[in-house]
Amino acid sequence: MKTLVIALGGNMLLRKGESGTFDAQLENAKRTAKRIAGLIERGYRVVITHGNGPQVGNILIQQEKGRDEVPAMPLDVCVAESQGEIGYMLQRALRAELIKRGIKRPVATIVTQVRVDENDAAFKNPTKPIGPFYSKQEAAKLSKKTGALFKEDAGRGYRRVVPSPKPREIVEKDAVRRMIKGGVIVIASGGGGIPVVKRGNRFRGVEAVIDKDLAAAVLAEDVDADMLIILTDVKAVFLDYRGKCEIELRKTTPEDASRYMKEGHFAPGSMGPKVQAAIDFALKGGRTIITSPRYLEKALKGDAGTLIE
Amino acid sequence: MKTLVIALGGNMLLRKGESGTFDAQLENAKRTAKRIAGLIERGYRVVITHGNGPQVGNILIQQEKGRDEVPAMPLDVCVAESQGEIGYMLQRALRAELIKRGIKRPVATIVTQVRVDENDAAFKNPTKPIGPFYSKQEAAKLSKKTGALFKEDAGRGYRRVVPSPKPREIVEKDAVRRMIKGGVIVIASGGGGIPVVKRGNRFRGVEAVIDKDLAAAVLAEDVDADMLIILTDVKAVFLDYRGKCEIELRKTTPEDASRYMKEGHFAPGSMGPKVQAAIDFALKGGRTIITSPRYLEKALKGDAGTLIE
Repeated sequence: MKTLVIALGGNMLLRKGESGTFDAQLENAKRTAKRIAGLIERGYRVVITHGNGPQVGNILIQQEKGRDEVPAMPLDVCVAESQGEIGYMLQRALRAELIKRGIKRPVATIVTQVRVDENDAAFKNPTKPIGPFYSKQEAAKLSKKTGALFKEDAGRGYRRVVPSPKPREIVEKDAVRRMIKGGVIVIASGGGGIPVVKRGNRFRGVEAVIDKDLAAAVLAEDVDADMLIILTDVKAVFLDYRGKCEIELRKTTPEDASRYMKEGHFAPGSMGPKVQAAIDFALKGGRTIITSPRYLEKALKGDAGTLIE
Repeated sequence: MKTLVIALGGNMLLRKGESGTFDAQLENAKRTAKRIAGLIERGYRVVITHGNGPQVGNILIQQEKGRDEVPAMPLDVCVAESQGEIGYMLQRALRAELIKRGIKRPVATIVTQVRVDENDAAFKNPTKPIGPFYSKQEAAKLSKKTGALFKEDAGRGYRRVVPSPKPREIVEKDAVRRMIKGGVIVIASGGGGIPVVKRGNRFRGVEAVIDKDLAAAVLAEDVDADMLIILTDVKAVFLDYRGKCEIELRKTTPEDASRYMKEGHFAPGSMGPKVQAAIDFALKGGRTIITSPRYLEKALKGDAGTLIE
């Protein structure tokens, strides 16, 4: 039985322009759950991971707004909260879809920590924007109050920036492995995982976020997945995307993908980390498909999407 | 190997008068983790569950304060968020304590739904106060805006009240069982679980909270636990607690406990639901100890705490 790690974007659940109520997100989750249930029906073992950008952004706003009455939780705890929120949403949606198809399989979300390296260069140069936009004045005020770092973001205002260190290890990998073996459909490492560093025998949370696609590649390796599937808005990886010489990649090697990356074909923070995750996993011997939910079944047959191996 | 379900109060992590920062809560979690690690060291299989009163109260305040910018999440989702927060805290603290003792056992939190009955009388008469106190005016304003119900609480102001229906089933019980079997130390059903009702094949979240001790009894039954341990601030159950005729109960039957309950010996919302949980579990053939963390080891030897069977 083949094991798939499926990575969903946080914006597949909360799309730009949508209100972001729980019910609106749940409707999106139901659509994705249908695609995933189809794979489970066909006999795949499935581990799901997901982004949390829009959701943790909202949780951060709530921390700020409530700060005068309630201690604001640090970023690692906000990620943990978003894992609870999104995990609940996905497991409810997927379980309903499975029962509808007569499949009795447990679905469970694991609160997941991901170890990063304290000496990761990212800690010296925080670059990952998170949360809402602020005016210069507001940003300065918040920075003074909380010690957080803010940077100007493409003329749209100031946003908090945090380090985005590389994921090294899924702390709960043994638990995830045992659950997969026990037939459980696992949702793990949400939002790239709760970032922790190791200090002697202890783990300590850090103010950082981990790229969910890079964490998905580590998860796929840690659970010996046969394939990593990165779901996104576009049906495949393109060279010169939306340009004059647009080419859809159907199959490529990590070496070629690295070259395309260097040539600037993939947008940082968008297709870039997805292709990087596929390269990382390929270098460990794994296969990755990048596609959209609609093309997922075709992609597994080799008739759509981009395969990197 | 014996399986223990251990229920911790939410206020064991965030005590009255404490600031409630994450670090302060983590320090409390570390102390409790030591006691629990001691049991794991002695060969018990452990499932942990916990309350979330103070934590979900804070999350609710953040929902209100952020409401103008961010959609407020419904109560079931707030419970899910608190499971992420507290689960992360407990699994980090317990894992560190186990590693210190040279025990390599995975620890994992499962986001847990608990099914309640749509026709539970509690839905017609919401009585459980949650979240902060408001003035009469504020409460009226919030009620108009959100549809929530507020009631005057013992002269201290107005608080939101929600239904507290009886827990019927741990939705993720199969996953929890398989994890226990796989040697994982599981944290489950936090805050009494995310309350859901069944509608055909689907589960739907409801605006309610489930008593964590009553849910712990259902969890203990659903995972065939050998014993339910309810940890609280006092070392045992007392008759006429702090009264003239105070008597420490060391061992009692569900029949006697029910009689004491009817006679008003146990405070509702405090010792009441703990004793009720023990009665529920005893009627299914289970044994329950009610004690404080400090007396836990002695209680397991029969030298402290209250045993109900």
